[in-house]
Amino acid sequence: MRIQPTSLKQIAEIINSKFIGNENHLVTGFNEIHRVQKGDLVFVDHPKYYDKALNSAATTVIINQEVNCPDGKALIIHNEPFTAFNTLTNYFQPKTLSNKNISDSAKIGKNFTALPGSYVGSNVVIGDNCVLHPNVVIYDNCIIGNNVIIHAGAVIGSDAFYFKNRTTLFEPLNSCGNVIIQDNVVIGANCTIDRGVTESTIIGKNTILDNLIHVGHDVHIGEMCLFAAQVGIAGCTNIGNNVKVWGQVGITSNANIPDNVTVYAQSGVTGDLESGKVYFGSPAGEAKEKMKEIFALKQLPDLIKKLY
Amino acid sequence: MRIQPTSLKQIAEIINSKFIGNENHLVTGFNEIHRVQKGDLVFVDHPKYYDKALNSAATTVIINQEVNCPDGKALIIHNEPFTAFNTLTNYFQPKTLSNKNISDSAKIGKNFTALPGSYVGSNVVIGDNCVLHPNVVIYDNCIIGNNVIIHAGAVIGSDAFYFKNRTTLFEPLNSCGNVIIQDNVVIGANCTIDRGVTESTIIGKNTILDNLIHVGHDVHIGEMCLFAAQVGIAGCTNIGNNVKVWGQVGITSNANIPDNVTVYAQSGVTGDLESGKVYFGSPAGEAKEKMKEIFALKQLPDLIKKLY
Amino acid sequence: MRIQPTSLKQIAEIINSKFIGNENHLVTGFNEIHRVQKGDLVFVDHPKYYDKALNSAATTVIINQEVNCPDGKALIIHNEPFTAFNTLTNYFQPKTLSNKNISDSAKIGKNFTALPGSYVGSNVVIGDNCVLHPNVVIYDNCIIGNNVIIHAGAVIGSDAFYFKNRTTLFEPLNSCGNVIIQDNVVIGANCTIDRGVTESTIIGKNTILDNLIHVGHDVHIGEMCLFAAQVGIAGCTNIGNNVKVWGQVGITSNANIPDNVTVYAQSGVTGDLESGKVYFGSPAGEAKEKMKEIFALKQLPDLIKKLY
Repeated sequence: MRIQPTSLKQIAEIINSKFIGNENHLVTGFNEIHRVQKGDLVFVDHPKYYDKALNSAATTVIINQEVNCPDGKALIIHNEPFTAFNTLTNYFQPKTLSNKNISDSAKIGKNFTALPGSYVGSNVVIGDNCVLHPNVVIYDNCIIGNNVIIHAGAVIGSDAFYFKNRTTLFEPLNSCGNVIIQDNVVIGANCTIDRGVTESTIIGKNTILDNLIHVGHDVHIGEMCLFAAQVGIAGCTNIGNNVKVWGQVGITSNANIPDNVTVYAQSGVTGDLESGKVYFGSPAGEAKEKMKEIFALKQLPDLIKKLY
Repeated sequence: MRIQPTSLKQIAEIINSKFIGNENHLVTGFNEIHRVQKGDLVFVDHPKYYDKALNSAATTVIINQEVNCPDGKALIIHNEPFTAFNTLTNYFQPKTLSNKNISDSAKIGKNFTALPGSYVGSNVVIGDNCVLHPNVVIYDNCIIGNNVIIHAGAVIGSDAFYFKNRTTLFEPLNSCGNVIIQDNVVIGANCTIDRGVTESTIIGKNTILDNLIHVGHDVHIGEMCLFAAQVGIAGCTNIGNNVKVWGQVGITSNANIPDNVTVYAQSGVTGDLESGKVYFGSPAGEAKEKMKEIFALKQLPDLIKKLY
Repeated sequence: MRIQPTSLKQIAEIINSKFIGNENHLVTGFNEIHRVQKGDLVFVDHPKYYDKALNSAATTVIINQEVNCPDGKALIIHNEPFTAFNTLTNYFQPKTLSNKNISDSAKIGKNFTALPGSYVGSNVVIGDNCVLHPNVVIYDNCIIGNNVIIHAGAVIGSDAFYFKNRTTLFEPLNSCGNVIIQDNVVIGANCTIDRGVTESTIIGKNTILDNLIHVGHDVHIGEMCLFAAQVGIAGCTNIGNNVKVWGQVGITSNANIPDNVTVYAQSGVTGDLESGKVYFGSPAGEAKEKMKEIFALKQLPDLIKKLY
């Protein structure tokens, strides 16, 4: 999430906190650790992750303990960095839930078709020649390219499934990112695409999603991919171009699926895959190896009978 | 389903049936056999289940054959107990489908946000500080606590998948129960939660559901559980507190999942589990055993080559 | 898709193409190769499929090369038969997206209940005593029988997941078919049923679908079937009568599932099955064989320990 450059002093005042660093040091954005860049403020609340946060590209860190401040960076000390981060993202980007079906603040291109019951939230941007079938929902701040078709009941930009486990409840991370859908994408009926927690979930140009697909927060999908019905992709996974994923496949969070991968139906992808290969199984492996295992397993009952 | 205490004689007249027992014996509710209590009327139509129904907590039984009436109980004799039961639940709680987006009979707390296209049925009760994102549907008689957030397109209280197989059609059991969603729950986009057939489907306090999850009729989910996207839970299953269920897991009907269980993604739970353990696979077993099987299976093709 | 009988000459003029055959030869419909009949025009663009198209029941073929024209048939020569076919189906059945919740051109029977947010597209036909719960969407040209209940958020008639892989984009086949839902069917909440590409996706009489089910284009489902939640059925599959499919099952495209088959939860059906049998597993096999494999696999880790 980008903000107008704001001084360390101002930021620290909003959350009523002590800081370490030059009071004129600038913060230009807020990001969760997996997508940080220079100018970003990030939070960390467990010593296990201190080094990762302090050595990341982020230049301001909210942390729950005084530590050495790396050169050119700044620290803000707060007992509850997660909560403080939520306070800041809410402060700089307050929720503005629109009560109209098409928000007045939405910017919409030429030749737009929005069928009954479709909803376009605050500050949404939509390109030319888009069609929203009935009851499509686009949450605030999402960006839709040109020639995008979204089928009935699809939901674009719902909150991330990202919670901190407190003793007596789950505290949500304020989802202040968005969804970007590039040109010529087709989204199937009743799909759900969560917004990024602080940046964007992206569906690349010319990619096609069948029905009832779930795309988690901060997933990046490349161009010309095909996803069959009921696929689920967990948060922060990166998918390249020309990837084909057949029905009911599940893909874990933070995985890297490079270009030209094919994943057969009902597979469960548990980590990074290799470009151009074909996968199958739950957990998924190379399809040709999995086929051997399936064939061998068929022989196993007789083998055991013979051996015992 | 609770009713005003009503005499056996009156009940029998509504369905035009003979009864055995004191005509002033009172019926105070209707329940399907899995959730009966004292005062309840239950139905049974197969000799295999006669004993279960007659010896249950229910104090009135609609049955399709004259049998000995247990002490302190009453029987109603009807050729088609299933159909007679439907007649009674419809009689005491007629359907009142509201044509308004927010029914006049709904009772709604303070600080309520209902975005466009959301629907709140007859007699729904909603607590304080709730948010319904666009196109959320809450069927009649459901009860929503405080601070509940329901994401776009979610459906709360649809009919149970509960049918009697007749020769030429499936006769539905009239779903007269509801859904109870307790405080601080978050329901993801396009989830579906079916109502109980005669009592309640319950989502406990502080529990979080990701997108596209199905919860069957009469499921009870405890507090502070996490369910990832596309999980499916069949009817009448009981789930404890602090249970974590990862993406695309399926859980069978009538299972007991105690506190602190974790189920890994894509598993298929086929029966009761043990508290605090971690499960994987379809059918699911303890994860550490399943991992050994997966590892062994990888070696099997070579083993077979060696042995033959 | 049926059209008024139209001469070969007229058809060829619309797509500005050369033809081989009698200029008065009649075209009475357009169909994709898997559902052709006499009078149909079909397209073919790869030499591998020429024979299949030329020898099919279709009597007119758009083809991208001059070949011998079979007796009594006609050919239209076009560089891009797929695109030409789309031009023709769009020409004879232009899209008429209705901006009303209930289209003026819809024909609706007696005793119809359409709750708020439900949408009935152009030329839809609905029988007597139907209920559309809130936010149900029925796309153009679909046909719904009598006594059909469709639960909230279900989508009937969304476009087929059928695309031609061009170098730089996926070109959709224009979905000009529809969905036919026969009498007494119940469709669960947030289900999605795609239209046929040129003919009909059919849900047979008395069949019940639970929630969040996906039915692909041109699937034919018979009578008195039960499908539990989150089942997915890929395009063009044929399913008989009295078939029971439990939760989260996936069924591949073009499969034949005959009468009285049962498929256990989470199975993956990869081809034709046999009548009356029970299946399990991914890929699915006969359940009793699969149970033996599961039992044997449990013993495998110990067996390997013993052998090495």
